[in-house]
Amino acid sequence: MFTSQPIGFVISPYKIAGEVPKGLGAKHDADGVLKILPEFEPGLTDIEGFSHLVIIWEFDRSHGFDLLGTPPSDNRPHGVFATRSPRRPNPIGLTTVELLRHEGIELHVRGVDMLDGTPILDIKPYLSSIPSEKLRRGWLAEAEARPK
Amino acid sequence: MFTSQPIGFVISPYKIAGEVPKGLGAKHDADGVLKILPEFEPGLTDIEGFSHLVIIWEFDRSHGFDLLGTPPSDNRPHGVFATRSPRRPNPIGLTTVELLRHEGIELHVRGVDMLDGTPILDIKPYLSSIPSEKLRRGWLAEAEARPK
Repeated sequence: MFTSQPIGFVISPYKIAGEVPKGLGAKHDADGVLKILPEFEPGLTDIEGFSHLVIIWEFDRSHGFDLLGTPPSDNRPHGVFATRSPRRPNPIGLTTVELLRHEGIELHVRGVDMLDGTPILDIKPYLSSIPSEKLRRGWLAEAEARPK
Repeated sequence: MFTSQPIGFVISPYKIAGEVPKGLGAKHDADGVLKILPEFEPGLTDIEGFSHLVIIWEFDRSHGFDLLGTPPSDNRPHGVFATRSPRRPNPIGLTTVELLRHEGIELHVRGVDMLDGTPILDIKPYLSSIPSEKLRRGWLAEAEARPK
């Protein structure tokens, strides 16, 4: 196995977890900057050709994990692997962002849901999407459909 | 930072890297099994409600990284963060699979592109997709469009 190392850090408007929009209908349209460490800058070559990027990052302010938990979008517990809870066996977060522009070691993006200062582990081009008619969203769709 | 730990392992038809379909037009429709370690089984609760899952895994047979590399789908070098190369600063792979069925500690899935025995780090529900008319695919679209 490996020890994670940051390739950069997120500049985000969110300073504490309570500020990140959560739960049903949460919109993630905040602008932020992915500031890459200078030694990794060549790895960004040609990245501006992609409209969307997948950011893999570390839940560095979360400690420990729960195999079952009740997410903010429901009032029933679900398995951690059926949720986006930060309390996971490997504290890895995943966010798809829209790339607005690439300036040297900075990627200006829309759609951040990470806290300010979050370590970035990896960036990959977002390539494909599942057609919506083939996508089932499990307990989340049920929670949305349930009368409030 | 954290040290990765496997939550399970992939059972895949691919035993060596050369067997995994790569490059332009590569189809990933191989069936496989995600075999989760028994201690993490409660974390799979309710996962069967989702049609697609995002699997985060470790490139455990890749060592070191290149910031610039020429992928099989092109004849020009690109930054590692604009490719899906296994030789990355953090050896993290990402695959979206279709969930066929959940049986105890086994998730039977379609769309594996990992090698047999690959350590699984995390599983998350696949929730959203970028509409295709908003998606730009950078150098990959250019490589596809280039006369062979």
